[in-house]
Amino acid sequence: MAEKLTPREKGFSEWYVDLIQKAKLADYSDVKGCMVIRPNGYALWENIQRVMDKMFKDEGVRNAYFPLLIPESYLKKEAEHVEGFNPQLAIVTHAGGQKLEEPYVIRPTSETIINRSFSKWIQSYRDLPLLLNQWANVMRWEMRTRLFLRTTEFLWQEGHTCHETEEDAEKRTLTMLEVYRTFAEDYMAMPVLPGRKTESEKFAGALRTYSIEAMMQDKKALQAGTSHNLGQNFAKAFDTQFQGRDGQQHHVWQTSWGSSTRLIGGLILTHSDDAGLIVPPKLAATHVVIIPVGIGGKAPEAEKAQVLEKVHALAADLRKAGLGVVVDDDETKTPGFKYNEHELTGTCVRIELGPKDLAKSSCVMVRRDLRQKEFVPLDEAVTKVQAMLDQMQKDLFKKAKDFRDAHTFEVNSFEELKAKADDGFLLAHWDGDAKTEARIKEETGLTTRCRPFSLKQEPGKCVMTGNPSQGRIVFSKAY
Amino acid sequence: MAEKLTPREKGFSEWYVDLIQKAKLADYSDVKGCMVIRPNGYALWENIQRVMDKMFKDEGVRNAYFPLLIPESYLKKEAEHVEGFNPQLAIVTHAGGQKLEEPYVIRPTSETIINRSFSKWIQSYRDLPLLLNQWANVMRWEMRTRLFLRTTEFLWQEGHTCHETEEDAEKRTLTMLEVYRTFAEDYMAMPVLPGRKTESEKFAGALRTYSIEAMMQDKKALQAGTSHNLGQNFAKAFDTQFQGRDGQQHHVWQTSWGSSTRLIGGLILTHSDDAGLIVPPKLAATHVVIIPVGIGGKAPEAEKAQVLEKVHALAADLRKAGLGVVVDDDETKTPGFKYNEHELTGTCVRIELGPKDLAKSSCVMVRRDLRQKEFVPLDEAVTKVQAMLDQMQKDLFKKAKDFRDAHTFEVNSFEELKAKADDGFLLAHWDGDAKTEARIKEETGLTTRCRPFSLKQEPGKCVMTGNPSQGRIVFSKAY
Repeated sequence: MAEKLTPREKGFSEWYVDLIQKAKLADYSDVKGCMVIRPNGYALWENIQRVMDKMFKDEGVRNAYFPLLIPESYLKKEAEHVEGFNPQLAIVTHAGGQKLEEPYVIRPTSETIINRSFSKWIQSYRDLPLLLNQWANVMRWEMRTRLFLRTTEFLWQEGHTCHETEEDAEKRTLTMLEVYRTFAEDYMAMPVLPGRKTESEKFAGALRTYSIEAMMQDKKALQAGTSHNLGQNFAKAFDTQFQGRDGQQHHVWQTSWGSSTRLIGGLILTHSDDAGLIVPPKLAATHVVIIPVGIGGKAPEAEKAQVLEKVHALAADLRKAGLGVVVDDDETKTPGFKYNEHELTGTCVRIELGPKDLAKSSCVMVRRDLRQKEFVPLDEAVTKVQAMLDQMQKDLFKKAKDFRDAHTFEVNSFEELKAKADDGFLLAHWDGDAKTEARIKEETGLTTRCRPFSLKQEPGKCVMTGNPSQGRIVFSKAY
Repeated sequence: MAEKLTPREKGFSEWYVDLIQKAKLADYSDVKGCMVIRPNGYALWENIQRVMDKMFKDEGVRNAYFPLLIPESYLKKEAEHVEGFNPQLAIVTHAGGQKLEEPYVIRPTSETIINRSFSKWIQSYRDLPLLLNQWANVMRWEMRTRLFLRTTEFLWQEGHTCHETEEDAEKRTLTMLEVYRTFAEDYMAMPVLPGRKTESEKFAGALRTYSIEAMMQDKKALQAGTSHNLGQNFAKAFDTQFQGRDGQQHHVWQTSWGSSTRLIGGLILTHSDDAGLIVPPKLAATHVVIIPVGIGGKAPEAEKAQVLEKVHALAADLRKAGLGVVVDDDETKTPGFKYNEHELTGTCVRIELGPKDLAKSSCVMVRRDLRQKEFVPLDEAVTKVQAMLDQMQKDLFKKAKDFRDAHTFEVNSFEELKAKADDGFLLAHWDGDAKTEARIKEETGLTTRCRPFSLKQEPGKCVMTGNPSQGRIVFSKAY
């Protein structure tokens, strides 16, 4: 029998770690805060990459690759940037058997080194917009780490674009945020609030940062993607200029935007249950497992052969329909063991097929999230699986959205904010002062997540200070 | 006009660097020996990855991801391994604002850190074979670097497998070498010699190393992929054991195999010409560029509209056939400028279409490698392009193979070896002694490339010492 997971009720964090390790998604390593992504976990990343990369390319973005190491002096060129990232840097001081004249840092993000190239490549407005992305590993030395959600090294994509005007940059910043929203909602089935971050929560070196914020099953927020309007900060630091249509030299306007393997953590925390992983069908590597049943032990050989023949024929039909299919005909394991194992690893639909089913030209289907048996005529099996997967994708999104909506509250006093601190997204008035924000965080553990575009902004009074507020913002505990 | 490249005759190395920079494949960076891979170059890597990844998966290999940093002590566990890689390591001594207790090295390859996980994951023969691959960046501090061919940081894939028996490991080593051969010949159109490396040229820590060796246009060899039978060396160093079918504990037998962005250098050096890049169609991102002609300046607007309509209709048809198509209708550039630009960046087929062509329901096609005009009826255009691409793929391979065969010689004396040192692949007898091999290298600059499987092994006398030889081996100057 597959070992049971700690139930969520008993310990949400233990359940999360248990699930990741038992479903073989990732493992700890001896390298501080770094994980090993195992094939079951990496397959999710490959699907995330495949979909997202296509979405980027449809937006005219091309991929490139910049060095892992950044000369330390580069980071210092943009004052806010170095201040933000300095405490988290891993530093290479020796290489090739010698002490380096200037140390290198392992990229925590690549705005600086990319701007060094931009400043060489860009001459004229004809070179703009320049729309690049890279899929890469980055490193931020974190004190407290958590598998997928916060690791010292992580895999991500970072987009970097250059524009003629501030408007173009702002437009691109929001376009890419919308790509993230679409990806999160339509593929991950994870509802998100797109909105603007506060000054104290923005990216070090940006003019404005936007994010998409999701709610996990424990009602904590997860920032699942960010898009930054960098203004001309890095362009000025690296002298990235172009000759404009007016014949004059101008600094380019830039954006950057990123999402990471953290998304896998978000996917787990949004949908999974005490039996294991649940994967939205659009990102699943294995959509269907077919398990032959009732042919163990003393079952007649002829019956066994008939069942296996049908099982493989069905698998072939499902594959032809473009689905990821596994046939689990390992005779050393019981069907029950296999059910548990595939529930643990998140196969979307399980099909059971035995002699009794075959006699009725039927099979049993079980949707991973519902875990209820359904009898389906064999000649409708492919259509039924497709319909099930479509419905599952929709249901997962609806369930997550209903959950979020049920745990989103308007709160109107500091007492209420404090009392509801663990209850989800709290929409509260705040005076816009970073000091107030810091005090609220200190006293309640709540941080501002974002000012969602969907939240109508009406004036009010700050829950902490009573000072005027322009509109409510989302407070929540967060990963 | 696009700037002309240094012709190969005038300076092969200058031509190579010129091409890479002017075709915007890659650029130098300020980080010692590291390059920036620009979108035109990265698109080649994406296509290489896509094809190769599919080939690996068809062989049952799954992708995973292991940490970038390796504790220094890990490398020291396998004596030959640390000796081989020590001089090339980049070392992280500080992180998170503190000096580290134990330094980390940036992975030069991942056998050690992967074995740490293998030793945890593998318990029984039921866990074998374990077939993993990772796509990653690695770092080897090189003294002399060259864009794509030898860079301090490079992108690669490294496969790592574990087996029950020595036979299984040897079989897998050769299977993956054959995958590399197939990829090189069928996709890159680059003929290679698969064979075994000598003891002194094998991977640090391996039992046996095999490689595929290609000949570049300057008659130098390029090692384009290696596959290692690691025996039990790393398994013993990391205690990677399994309970065998006999109930006893055994160390696993392992392989590792890798190929890298160096392949892009090989692709350039095999096929390209003085006009620029030539890409085998199977790896090209852009198969066809359509350039409207004869509609500049005073051409009637109606004619112009007709031509552009047909150009876009043809582009749509070609895209429907699965081809990468660009329409270059930029009116600020002359057709001649565009011809040069697309020859430089390696678009496989150019189509010119103007009012005169339209009147004859025809168009002009030019295959990148031949650079000869051909008149093609418009209604045959799609079929013709497909046939052209197929033929181009075949012709590129044949041309490269003929070139290699014409520059491969049996040599029977040291004088001859020395005289022909720059002439290509030299098949010579060698006594198998590493000291002799080193002397030959010192006196001629020639290294042993591999003992090709295709080369019949017959006894003879070493060209250097006159001592007995088991058979000829390939000597060549090499990248």
